[in-house]
Amino acid sequence: MSIREIPLNKVRITDAFWSPRQRLMTDVTIPYMEKILRDEVPGAEKSHAISNFSMAAGEETGEFYGMVFQDSDVAKWLEAAAYSLALKPDKELEARVDDMVTLIGRCQQPDGYLNTYFTVKEPQNRWANLLECHELYCAGHMIEAGVALHEAAGKDELLRICIRLADHICDRFMQEEGIPGHQEIEIGLMRLYHATGNTKYRDMALRFLDLRGKNPDWFIQHTPKHPDTHYGDYDILPEDTAYNQSDVPVREQTVARGHAVRQLYMLTAMADAAADTGDAELIAACDRLFDNITQKQMYVTGAVGSTAHRESFTMDYDLPSDRCYGETCASVAMTFFAHNMLAIKPDGRYADLMELELYNAALAGMSLDGKRFFYVNPLTVDTRVSGIVPGYKHVLPRRPAWHACACCPPNLARLIASLGKYLWSEDEDTVYSHLFIGSEVETRHGRISMESGYPWAGNATYTIHDGGTFALAIHVPQHIKEMRINVNGAGVIGIMQEGYCRLQRTWHSGDQVTVQFDMPVRRIHAHPHVRDTAGKVALARGPLVYCLESVDHESTLAEVSLPQAARIEAVHLSAGILAGITTLHADGLTLITSDRLYHSEPRRQKPCQLIAVPYFAWGNRQFGDMCVWTLEK
Amino acid sequence: MSIREIPLNKVRITDAFWSPRQRLMTDVTIPYMEKILRDEVPGAEKSHAISNFSMAAGEETGEFYGMVFQDSDVAKWLEAAAYSLALKPDKELEARVDDMVTLIGRCQQPDGYLNTYFTVKEPQNRWANLLECHELYCAGHMIEAGVALHEAAGKDELLRICIRLADHICDRFMQEEGIPGHQEIEIGLMRLYHATGNTKYRDMALRFLDLRGKNPDWFIQHTPKHPDTHYGDYDILPEDTAYNQSDVPVREQTVARGHAVRQLYMLTAMADAAADTGDAELIAACDRLFDNITQKQMYVTGAVGSTAHRESFTMDYDLPSDRCYGETCASVAMTFFAHNMLAIKPDGRYADLMELELYNAALAGMSLDGKRFFYVNPLTVDTRVSGIVPGYKHVLPRRPAWHACACCPPNLARLIASLGKYLWSEDEDTVYSHLFIGSEVETRHGRISMESGYPWAGNATYTIHDGGTFALAIHVPQHIKEMRINVNGAGVIGIMQEGYCRLQRTWHSGDQVTVQFDMPVRRIHAHPHVRDTAGKVALARGPLVYCLESVDHESTLAEVSLPQAARIEAVHLSAGILAGITTLHADGLTLITSDRLYHSEPRRQKPCQLIAVPYFAWGNRQFGDMCVWTLEK
Repeated sequence: MSIREIPLNKVRITDAFWSPRQRLMTDVTIPYMEKILRDEVPGAEKSHAISNFSMAAGEETGEFYGMVFQDSDVAKWLEAAAYSLALKPDKELEARVDDMVTLIGRCQQPDGYLNTYFTVKEPQNRWANLLECHELYCAGHMIEAGVALHEAAGKDELLRICIRLADHICDRFMQEEGIPGHQEIEIGLMRLYHATGNTKYRDMALRFLDLRGKNPDWFIQHTPKHPDTHYGDYDILPEDTAYNQSDVPVREQTVARGHAVRQLYMLTAMADAAADTGDAELIAACDRLFDNITQKQMYVTGAVGSTAHRESFTMDYDLPSDRCYGETCASVAMTFFAHNMLAIKPDGRYADLMELELYNAALAGMSLDGKRFFYVNPLTVDTRVSGIVPGYKHVLPRRPAWHACACCPPNLARLIASLGKYLWSEDEDTVYSHLFIGSEVETRHGRISMESGYPWAGNATYTIHDGGTFALAIHVPQHIKEMRINVNGAGVIGIMQEGYCRLQRTWHSGDQVTVQFDMPVRRIHAHPHVRDTAGKVALARGPLVYCLESVDHESTLAEVSLPQAARIEAVHLSAGILAGITTLHADGLTLITSDRLYHSEPRRQKPCQLIAVPYFAWGNRQFGDMCVWTLEK
Repeated sequence: MSIREIPLNKVRITDAFWSPRQRLMTDVTIPYMEKILRDEVPGAEKSHAISNFSMAAGEETGEFYGMVFQDSDVAKWLEAAAYSLALKPDKELEARVDDMVTLIGRCQQPDGYLNTYFTVKEPQNRWANLLECHELYCAGHMIEAGVALHEAAGKDELLRICIRLADHICDRFMQEEGIPGHQEIEIGLMRLYHATGNTKYRDMALRFLDLRGKNPDWFIQHTPKHPDTHYGDYDILPEDTAYNQSDVPVREQTVARGHAVRQLYMLTAMADAAADTGDAELIAACDRLFDNITQKQMYVTGAVGSTAHRESFTMDYDLPSDRCYGETCASVAMTFFAHNMLAIKPDGRYADLMELELYNAALAGMSLDGKRFFYVNPLTVDTRVSGIVPGYKHVLPRRPAWHACACCPPNLARLIASLGKYLWSEDEDTVYSHLFIGSEVETRHGRISMESGYPWAGNATYTIHDGGTFALAIHVPQHIKEMRINVNGAGVIGIMQEGYCRLQRTWHSGDQVTVQFDMPVRRIHAHPHVRDTAGKVALARGPLVYCLESVDHESTLAEVSLPQAARIEAVHLSAGILAGITTLHADGLTLITSDRLYHSEPRRQKPCQLIAVPYFAWGNRQFGDMCVWTLEK
């Protein structure tokens, strides 16, 4: 049998780093987002998402407001709320979720159709424009919410609504051709298949995947030209077939292109389907794209999407730091994709990618207080130009309280609230530990708990609570050069296999496995084809990528450099906004500045102290510049 | 009295570097452009500019084609042709110019109005939309052509036409308010004033300048909203008042903003008017903007305009090499501006700027064979992205044969063909030599000739052909650390004054002044606020900025570096496409490439030879990458 995820209700996170962040979700972010959706946060960007549902149910009058995919904000919030209820029972939240679900039920049409935009505003245009309409996208998110409420909170009402919705979609699209303009329904249908066991939903997901790119002109031929079927104020060109990856059959794709989130949602569903069916062609396509993205098109923080132009991938090695798109949703989706790849085979590269995204690009999408969010996650911020000058306008130096296109905040919330899903998996004879995140898990081989000082310290202790014969396979992140392992105090040597250290034995209750490893500061260099990082170094320690912020430096960040021989010291902070965080201190150099724009004198430098903070924590103090890559001298 | 330009017909260029380039203009480029304007070059972008005039004269039927300012291509070509006739009498060209001028005359309306677009296509909308219509812009260029034909070729027909046109403009705009949407008429009117002595034209130019920005909402209030008065397929927003520098009175402007060519044409006219009137406020504004541009917003090649977005200046120190706009027209206009500043005061900084533009950013706008042209002049070309990826699409790695918006080629042609104007000026007691370009000049103090090995060798010899008491003031480019001066073989010491070495004496016929100076290779560093060039060096020798091209290197240009201690050797080439050019050879380093996108091994390097060629000569050999800035180790 294949490796399988250990479901959320069998995992409890007990981690010094992540538990407070989950509490932030349950106590701050998810309630805050609900207020946003109800338009109860003064000064924040208007949402109107709940009102759209009230209107669709005929219980409120007025105009639909927001993106054509505004419903998905509610769906993602409901999914996050489901995980929140699993983390922390809350009767009041539960009641509000129930109310929201019944409201959604009242919006559902007799045939199962569910979408507020088309119900309120253009009922005549249902399913008329798959390129732009996002109906399948919203349905996919709603189905994910339905499955989450069922699995995490034991609530089935939305699942039932979503089954009717999914049946409506299957009825229509099993007969006629249709390709989702924004991939997502495929994820929802796969999850519904896992939750119900009904293969119809998997088959529908596969049909959507396999139709894509078969006829590269499909969107050109099937997108209506009438002005009354353009739904948003954005314009997606049917001719731009690479944008939504519909130019080549998905099994033949080799290079990530076009809109990053579309690409990654597609890969997330492909990996899920491939793990389920064992389809070698599909697996190979997932692997090729995983390699292309992680080895050619990914920022060192895990961010992807090199251009704001259509939020897209560009070309191999085109990774400009200061115009980075790096949408938070794309990093969340990278985590989904990596997680689903682990169900195909337990390869440490997938767990490495989850770790990279969780501790860096995805986490940076939110402020430490859980109330402000980045859509775009740059690697260089220069406040003289970022957010101001054309080409940099999307690079906001400050996290806003909300966004007109609010896909990212609830996406991050559902990821963090459901983090338990990503830690462990199992097969007949093995329990896999993917991440050093303190937790308790119930496996088919009994209960196991784990404690870890990660990401600040290099250790973890696993306790086996029940006996049994199985292998414990511990993922060894690729940055660890040597891991020392003890079982009940005695050194052992595990078998390294695809990034996992396998300890196969007959375990007894109370057995303890302790792993220890050094976390030296690493100087990371990029491939020389990445023009932007030539001559530069990024710092990392353990899973964390670091950055410099101008608040810690007198000099402009572009004028400081880190000598190759400089010693770098890890300094753990116990006070201030960054309390609990390990910073890095080094003796750097800064230029003695000439006033002239160009001069031909030799560069002169003087010593200065450099302070680096974890990338996820940037932008939480004084407004200013930031850079991940620093000149290395 | 103030310093004054020595007119073109009193200067003859006899220079080993520039004379062949002027011959290229007379023999290749100007005839080639005429063919383009007549649509006789197969495969080149359609022009239709001459046909537009034939239609306006009622002698051809069909549709107006091209930009609303297509007439200006003809005007700039006529101006270049005028200079060509001065360089090289050519009866056939003269006859064709005469024909073209009479055609233009037949297009002129009874009231003096002259513009083919509005005559052919929208006669009802004459002067209705100054923001976008470019009627004043085209008029300015036509007036420049009329003055050039009068001054350089002794032909007055177009001047008469332009006087009627200018009178029509004065009649209208001396009465009612009007602000040119694209500055240029101001330059034309100032030149017409110089040519005719009629102060009305100067006053009209000053009125246009001084109205600008007085009411910052002028364009918002005076741009019609009717769809039938939008003339081009571009859209200029009246609200974007910084774009055409109409948000602040010109005398109060401090920082270059908006469309670079508009800004620089305005400054060219302002400097001309300021030199004539001695208006201290106007002079101060010119000086402030000169300083801002050259010390904050100019690329090391002399290019300006940091963003393709509206072809604009952006912010101080925002100078990305790979997305540079650096329009050829802007560098031509920088030369005009610097030249006119010299009429205010002989300050070497202005001559330095002329030198920088002429030998670098402007000259690079044309291929060595004179038939292909850049609109955009980048400092980094990476053919994997340049011209392809959004944000880099404007950065063409190859000079096209022509452009849909063809402002640049004829602008460069008129500059090079009239280069004689830029070399010398004089006042009552001084003859100023601004550039080391071999030439003969007739001054009020008699005939002087000069020979120079520039830009390849550091020498010049001035011969005084008539006697007299005056100062010879020789501009010492700022890159010269020490200039050795001999008069008739004996060393002398001149008085340095604002960048000019003044030799005041009573000269005798046959006196010779010889100057010699070293031209070591210079390592240029940029101000540390320029993020793009951090850790990088540019090479220059004499007036020339150099660049690396991939055709000379095995490694990708981003992976090579130049050690601080590396010796750099000048190697003069005698064969190949670059024959006659001095290249630079140095022992560099190149990275030993890892295949991984990110790794934490130390950088390893191996020796490699670096070859740099003058920037103006790039892109004339094999298609490939280019960079001006190289990592310095």
